Amino acid sequence: MNEMSLLVAITGWEAEVWHRRFRELAPERRVYLHSDAYPVEKIRYACTWKAPHGLLATLPNLEAVFSLGAGVDHLIADPDLPDVPIIRIVDPDLTGRMSEYVVLHVLMHHRRQRLYDTQQRARVWREHRQPAAREVRVGIMGLGVLGRDAAEKLVHLGFDVAGWSRTAKAVPGIVSFSGDAELDAFLERTDILVVLLPLTDETRGILDRDLFERLAKDGELGGPIVINAGRGGLQVEEDILAALDDNTLAAATLDVFEREPLAPSSRLWSHPKVTVTPHNAAVSQPQALTRYILDQIARHETGLAFENVVDRTAGY
Amino acid sequence: MNEMSLLVAITGWEAEVWHRRFRELAPERRVYLHSDAYPVEKIRYACTWKAPHGLLATLPNLEAVFSLGAGVDHLIADPDLPDVPIIRIVDPDLTGRMSEYVVLHVLMHHRRQRLYDTQQRARVWREHRQPAAREVRVGIMGLGVLGRDAAEKLVHLGFDVAGWSRTAKAVPGIVSFSGDAELDAFLERTDILVVLLPLTDETRGILDRDLFERLAKDGELGGPIVINAGRGGLQVEEDILAALDDNTLAAATLDVFEREPLAPSSRLWSHPKVTVTPHNAAVSQPQALTRYILDQIARHETGLAFENVVDRTAGY
Repeated sequence: MNEMSLLVAITGWEAEVWHRRFRELAPERRVYLHSDAYPVEKIRYACTWKAPHGLLATLPNLEAVFSLGAGVDHLIADPDLPDVPIIRIVDPDLTGRMSEYVVLHVLMHHRRQRLYDTQQRARVWREHRQPAAREVRVGIMGLGVLGRDAAEKLVHLGFDVAGWSRTAKAVPGIVSFSGDAELDAFLERTDILVVLLPLTDETRGILDRDLFERLAKDGELGGPIVINAGRGGLQVEEDILAALDDNTLAAATLDVFEREPLAPSSRLWSHPKVTVTPHNAAVSQPQALTRYILDQIARHETGLAFENVVDRTAGY
Repeated sequence: MNEMSLLVAITGWEAEVWHRRFRELAPERRVYLHSDAYPVEKIRYACTWKAPHGLLATLPNLEAVFSLGAGVDHLIADPDLPDVPIIRIVDPDLTGRMSEYVVLHVLMHHRRQRLYDTQQRARVWREHRQPAAREVRVGIMGLGVLGRDAAEKLVHLGFDVAGWSRTAKAVPGIVSFSGDAELDAFLERTDILVVLLPLTDETRGILDRDLFERLAKDGELGGPIVINAGRGGLQVEEDILAALDDNTLAAATLDVFEREPLAPSSRLWSHPKVTVTPHNAAVSQPQALTRYILDQIARHETGLAFENVVDRTAGY
């Protein structure tokens, strides 16, 4: 029995599925759920999604923390986070799912699907002017693994794609902007804004009225559109609603919210210009991710460095 | 003045836009609308979309007919069609638009967007099991320029894609089936059927109850799905409705209909499993296509053969 034990600390997802899958793949290890009893001194690795703050600080021999979702903001926000490597999930399955979501919702806006849905309900047969993809400018905020993959897939469909990130990143096939200095130039050429930023002190509330007003006004889709599949904390929901109401924004697709689940009383549910999805753009699948984590642990135990370690200062 | 004149014979679209565009690009030629007076003996080229049957037979010096849409079934059905080359439109713009439509609607079904739409109306926050694209088998009937492009873009998004065509065609990245002998094998591995066939005597009514019953029953999406963006004459609408009602089909997206515009009384408009669009998947844009036609005419007048000539026996 390998005494380098794993702790699975998950809130909001089915922890038992992950627990079982780790035990299947690593029968030689002990794997504990944080809701059960476990020997704190034996835990070397924690696999977490929204683990209770303070929990990790109780583990004296912890060597690494794995975040089971793409965002690490909840982990970084733990005031008692121990000083061990935090490893992000980088998984082709997760990346592919996010790109499916982004491509679907960009195309729904581009092809005016909501207008045709309304017509269908009214039994109206009417065609509307349809720009080609090359006439529509998509701007992606956040050029990490997810943003770059979505960009590449949108380019492949013919869209005119640009990206923006905090630090300059060269992405083949797209124009890249970076930093505060280039944010204006990026926004003013953007018809459909796709947000895949991490949530940090710098990005919290970035999707506000001021930003919406800087988006392109001369596009082919009747006004700028926002798709947020990043983090709810990036957006100011009152500003989104106000911008939709006064036509600063033409439409919004939101997968994430300031508070989740979205309250039944929120006006976002019923706003005719809003598509709401229940934070399902890219859900971590135990099948692939447990294997990735065990591979990383195996690397570590043979003396190699972990891959995809979070920069705690940058916050992602 | 070049006496090799053009006739624009269009029904159902704005003929004047095409007329004006031809005149802009070829000011040295005479370009006539079929609704105006024109000297029949001067017309060498006819640019048609649903031209009245019999009209082309009145042009004694006709050298070629250009179909302005991807389908040529209306032309071929003209009992008095003169024996001159019929040239199909092959245009990257048109192809790109069709692939946008196909990718959009495959993703809408794959990502259960209609279920999430229903949940949004009821303010329900609930996530459903989501297969990865690689677990979903898309089958494309018709592997012409449009079918091949759509296949390639779906492969790029990770779907498990196969194709079927009348005669065997090798398409990189996908499994190809052909002819009656391989239709069963194709259908039984298809979760989402995308139909981009031409309308011929052999394909008329092919989308019937018998075919729907042969689609995969063991897929990840709760039953097989049909997307018809080819021709309305391919489908038997009563069979589609019956198959949806008894769950032989899980859903259908239809851009084309037996009669267009779709009658307000059709049950397709209001069926909860049906998405109706007004034959707008890929609409010919005068901007690009007029140039393509004039290029083909220029080739012809310098003694070169026309490209993309229709095989009248095959019907496409």
